[in-house]
Amino acid sequence: MAANGARDPEESLIFEKLLQVSTDSAWAVCASLGYPNSFIEGLTTVLPDRKMVGRALTLRYVPMRPDLNERERASGSTLAKRAVELAGPGDILVVDAGGETGAGFIGDVIGTRFVVRGGAGLVVDGAIRDLHYMRTIGLPMYLRGAHAAGSGRRIVGVDLNGTVSCGGVAVTPGDILLGDAQGILVIPRAIAREVAEKAAATEHKENFLRATLQKGIRTIDDVYPPNAEVLEEYEVYRKQHPVD
Amino acid sequence: MAANGARDPEESLIFEKLLQVSTDSAWAVCASLGYPNSFIEGLTTVLPDRKMVGRALTLRYVPMRPDLNERERASGSTLAKRAVELAGPGDILVVDAGGETGAGFIGDVIGTRFVVRGGAGLVVDGAIRDLHYMRTIGLPMYLRGAHAAGSGRRIVGVDLNGTVSCGGVAVTPGDILLGDAQGILVIPRAIAREVAEKAAATEHKENFLRATLQKGIRTIDDVYPPNAEVLEEYEVYRKQHPVD
Amino acid sequence: MAANGARDPEESLIFEKLLQVSTDSAWAVCASLGYPNSFIEGLTTVLPDRKMVGRALTLRYVPMRPDLNERERASGSTLAKRAVELAGPGDILVVDAGGETGAGFIGDVIGTRFVVRGGAGLVVDGAIRDLHYMRTIGLPMYLRGAHAAGSGRRIVGVDLNGTVSCGGVAVTPGDILLGDAQGILVIPRAIAREVAEKAAATEHKENFLRATLQKGIRTIDDVYPPNAEVLEEYEVYRKQHPVD
Amino acid sequence: MAANGARDPEESLIFEKLLQVSTDSAWAVCASLGYPNSFIEGLTTVLPDRKMVGRALTLRYVPMRPDLNERERASGSTLAKRAVELAGPGDILVVDAGGETGAGFIGDVIGTRFVVRGGAGLVVDGAIRDLHYMRTIGLPMYLRGAHAAGSGRRIVGVDLNGTVSCGGVAVTPGDILLGDAQGILVIPRAIAREVAEKAAATEHKENFLRATLQKGIRTIDDVYPPNAEVLEEYEVYRKQHPVD
Amino acid sequence: MAANGARDPEESLIFEKLLQVSTDSAWAVCASLGYPNSFIEGLTTVLPDRKMVGRALTLRYVPMRPDLNERERASGSTLAKRAVELAGPGDILVVDAGGETGAGFIGDVIGTRFVVRGGAGLVVDGAIRDLHYMRTIGLPMYLRGAHAAGSGRRIVGVDLNGTVSCGGVAVTPGDILLGDAQGILVIPRAIAREVAEKAAATEHKENFLRATLQKGIRTIDDVYPPNAEVLEEYEVYRKQHPVD
Amino acid sequence: MAANGARDPEESLIFEKLLQVSTDSAWAVCASLGYPNSFIEGLTTVLPDRKMVGRALTLRYVPMRPDLNERERASGSTLAKRAVELAGPGDILVVDAGGETGAGFIGDVIGTRFVVRGGAGLVVDGAIRDLHYMRTIGLPMYLRGAHAAGSGRRIVGVDLNGTVSCGGVAVTPGDILLGDAQGILVIPRAIAREVAEKAAATEHKENFLRATLQKGIRTIDDVYPPNAEVLEEYEVYRKQHPVD
Repeated sequence: MAANGARDPEESLIFEKLLQVSTDSAWAVCASLGYPNSFIEGLTTVLPDRKMVGRALTLRYVPMRPDLNERERASGSTLAKRAVELAGPGDILVVDAGGETGAGFIGDVIGTRFVVRGGAGLVVDGAIRDLHYMRTIGLPMYLRGAHAAGSGRRIVGVDLNGTVSCGGVAVTPGDILLGDAQGILVIPRAIAREVAEKAAATEHKENFLRATLQKGIRTIDDVYPPNAEVLEEYEVYRKQHPVD
Repeated sequence: MAANGARDPEESLIFEKLLQVSTDSAWAVCASLGYPNSFIEGLTTVLPDRKMVGRALTLRYVPMRPDLNERERASGSTLAKRAVELAGPGDILVVDAGGETGAGFIGDVIGTRFVVRGGAGLVVDGAIRDLHYMRTIGLPMYLRGAHAAGSGRRIVGVDLNGTVSCGGVAVTPGDILLGDAQGILVIPRAIAREVAEKAAATEHKENFLRATLQKGIRTIDDVYPPNAEVLEEYEVYRKQHPVD
Repeated sequence: MAANGARDPEESLIFEKLLQVSTDSAWAVCASLGYPNSFIEGLTTVLPDRKMVGRALTLRYVPMRPDLNERERASGSTLAKRAVELAGPGDILVVDAGGETGAGFIGDVIGTRFVVRGGAGLVVDGAIRDLHYMRTIGLPMYLRGAHAAGSGRRIVGVDLNGTVSCGGVAVTPGDILLGDAQGILVIPRAIAREVAEKAAATEHKENFLRATLQKGIRTIDDVYPPNAEVLEEYEVYRKQHPVD
Repeated sequence: MAANGARDPEESLIFEKLLQVSTDSAWAVCASLGYPNSFIEGLTTVLPDRKMVGRALTLRYVPMRPDLNERERASGSTLAKRAVELAGPGDILVVDAGGETGAGFIGDVIGTRFVVRGGAGLVVDGAIRDLHYMRTIGLPMYLRGAHAAGSGRRIVGVDLNGTVSCGGVAVTPGDILLGDAQGILVIPRAIAREVAEKAAATEHKENFLRATLQKGIRTIDDVYPPNAEVLEEYEVYRKQHPVD
Repeated sequence: MAANGARDPEESLIFEKLLQVSTDSAWAVCASLGYPNSFIEGLTTVLPDRKMVGRALTLRYVPMRPDLNERERASGSTLAKRAVELAGPGDILVVDAGGETGAGFIGDVIGTRFVVRGGAGLVVDGAIRDLHYMRTIGLPMYLRGAHAAGSGRRIVGVDLNGTVSCGGVAVTPGDILLGDAQGILVIPRAIAREVAEKAAATEHKENFLRATLQKGIRTIDDVYPPNAEVLEEYEVYRKQHPVD
Repeated sequence: MAANGARDPEESLIFEKLLQVSTDSAWAVCASLGYPNSFIEGLTTVLPDRKMVGRALTLRYVPMRPDLNERERASGSTLAKRAVELAGPGDILVVDAGGETGAGFIGDVIGTRFVVRGGAGLVVDGAIRDLHYMRTIGLPMYLRGAHAAGSGRRIVGVDLNGTVSCGGVAVTPGDILLGDAQGILVIPRAIAREVAEKAAATEHKENFLRATLQKGIRTIDDVYPPNAEVLEEYEVYRKQHPVD
């Protein structure tokens, strides 16, 4: 197990690179590879200063109905409990609760277990409970809301690790997620390495372009995209300060 | 096959009874049996004068994503096409498109095939296409919207006959649906006969109570619920005009 | 009792005049008298071809709570039943249900009694039940929604004939209401006669102006507002066809 | 002037072809030519049985502000009046009122003049006044709402025939608009002929495919898209019944 | 007067206990006693790190209307001013402004007086003014918005200490309110002591269960709810660390 | 150039005064001068502790459309780039993106250039990109959202320094803007000096009134508005501590 929660060296490299980039740089690569609809909308972050990187473990909830509730319980445990026991380092719970904010799918006790299991984040198209406690445990969380009521008031779990819809983006289990202050990007695993590497290169270049602009001499049209002169300067810089 | 699209005498009896009742009377029975959250909200009906009765055949869509689109196509056909070929008399397509109204899941050609197959209705938490044509074919439809764009603009099919969420209600395949001018009630099959029979009895009684009020003599407190005198009159009436 | 449901000759005259005018003409007079915020927004009409005129009888509901429910029942009857028994010819129930559309405040049985009592309309910032039946009884209705569930699922009655909020407008008992295809205007009783008379005069004049434009000779700048020539023509016309 | 309101034979041909097709068929061609975001969302139609074809004449409103109001009046007339006097046969007023439904941009008198001028339709991302009258004059209208208040309560006109935003689509003056029961498609003039012709061909073919399905023998996978056999049958049919 | 703003020892005990518990634990007890709909939704907190406990003093506003405004002024003062003069230690203003965020019901001057009077919090289904100042005075506030305009722009006060609707929950004067980072729970006075005591017991137990999980040995199914072994450990712990 | 970004002494005085006042005090003056609808609604601030004062430089975007995109590029640069090169000290970009939050109109590189140019703030009825970076550069920002996608995904620029609509308020180039924790006030230049001076006087007086209340002796009715005695005290105070 890598320090960043990755399961293997390939994943570790992806996670490491993504920790250096913004959702914007990564989105641009995703879009160029055919995935423009990959940024989750409408959730708010609880820890805007923390980056989040990990892989998706998905849960799906539908509106409460007694027979489905019985079926969930008959499986031995609730969906949320099964999910946190299945979770390991680097896992992010991605919860499709259909945007329901009138009940929370998880609270302080199950949340504590998730942290112990090494969970890397929560992305909830719905609500959690116990926000006062949950925002103190250092777990990156992206939520539509928080509510004092338990899930049984409104929703019931139906699927673990199926394809779900979350904030307007489809998420499949194993997708790589990148979260920063503005939201979460969903990256299909098949393109994750390419996204991570190209986005890191973009980021490296844009850092240079911002520094160039900060000198106050060149205009935006010279610099973004860079004209021949600025590009040459960047190439010199890049040799001295290579992309990691 | 019964005239009303039912598959067996039990279902035929249920369908027949439900055709006589309102979603209100049926909701009251559902609620008394533990299912208060059974009325779909937020859809509009295209044919308010037509009642709809049938069984649910469910489809689930998530936001468009190229790899899921390939997976759907790899199954040999699109989800909508597989659904209409699977459909028979009495089937109602219940579509969970996550409320997306920026693309239609079905249009005039596939819709025509569904009618030929004997389809009994469409309930779409999302949109259809070709509304100008579709509203002429006599099929009861409950929709969140209609859009000129094909599904590929926004959504991709992922599940046939799984549990879905539609207008705030969970629907499982085989649920019995009752639609009238105000919306759609979702009735779990296990309680459908009881709901149909009790609702028909309620309806019979309330018709009498309305007729009683129309005479203009009694007040609402005498009649609803009926006091001893009115109840006695109803018992006499019920012997003369039994519930079917 | 006048034919139009009025309680006295003054009210009868107001009702009669208002039946000839649009909510637009009446709004313009209300606005000029200091009441620009008098048109209810967000409700839909069930009978767009019927005009509605009457006086407000108000009901207020809040979210369901068991102790308030007990208090309502302890008053001997539900709020809706007390309201329909209190209602007489010319009364319009104005219901502040806080926009809640997940339960209906009234259904077919109580609605029938209201019609028998001479009720002139329903204006509901919330929902009714039994829409399939209610839309057949000829009662003008303006609603935010319709739902199969009874009020007890979500709301409880707290006030009869207090000041309420309905579709963004404050309504007090006894206000005069005018409804047409586009919505409902709330007219304080103190200004109702002035509104009715001035609006009838406006209507008379605008009918003439539209007829003038339909001849296809004059431009909109000649006619609206009318220049001296058109005004003179109107004065001639008005002498021949006086405002009722 | 052509019978259909067109200004020249080219436009007349476009209008004629478009009258035969649905917004769906036309959208598919627009999307294939790079314009997928061309269907206006969120407006409702007042005359669902009428098709609408014409060219855009655009108006832009912003929230009311006294100095802008003075500036509008200083131009000699209001924006709406200038627009209807500028309008001729085949013109459709496309109004960007920012979705404001608390005041109507036009009412019965100005609307009458617009009809006299030969106006072909109204598409309003906002509201009109006098709905009770306006829905009787046979003019296709697509609206977000209707309100009794005049525009001065909320909005003020700032641009005539500039680029506007309407229901999520950019519209420029002279764009060709096609409206049917489900909404309005915005077709840039440069591609309008190609859209009209290809959509008419699609429509012709889909009519045949629907008729084929109605015989009840072939499945949707045989017919949509047509397999070799069905395609051959269609070629035979097309020779006998050519696209107009 | 107790240190926590309570009026008597009973209330003081309730306030003290509630200060130790979360809205989640208290909600669970409320729900078990028949009050599941007791958590206010849709407001945001200005001081997420402050707990709020107190009793409700209610205000109701409706959309502005000149005659109601005159009536309010005729009472000698505005509703907000009468409320703050009525308020004492432990009082929380609960304001039903119908969700209106286009004008603030209270600002810095009246807010200052409320703090001087010992006010314990603001819960506003609407907006306040002077947010820049108000967020510096240490008063817990839960708001739908903040606006620079005074109440007269949109709303007028009609009721002091009546039953109101706030964020989807009915509130009556004297209800006990508990606020934390995620929102506000409304507790009817008749059950407040039971809620406070049972919630404190729950909290005590869940603290233990979280600590147990943090050791990383037991699974969520062992601990939540606790199996016999964990329960026994808790009983030992509880004897050593009794609930206050 | 003045220290506060003003272009001339008059503007410098206005900026200086406005920095001392709240949007509330300034709104009250605007409203009294005929501009009640001057406070932008629905945006959130990223730096609630920073005041913002400056003049409006406006941009207008409409939904993306390829031909408009070509037209924008044909002008030599994108709208955002032209705007930041045009901007100087004291300029605030006011962006009408129609509320679109699915793509950002500006990101870290262009944002950096704007800061170098002396830009005083961003007010966006839409979204920006690179929020994680942008919130670190000390620029006051009021936004509807933030998104990882570039503007080309959804919007295209059409107007520089025209009249725009932003958060329900019309903004013209050169308007003076005042932002604080609760939002932004738009002040027409023609009244800006009067607004600044009168608001500063109000602020001065309300500071005194709050201090008076904090002594805990007088009631709100004595102080707000001040009775003769308090007014006299204020006059004494004002002589000793004149308004700047």
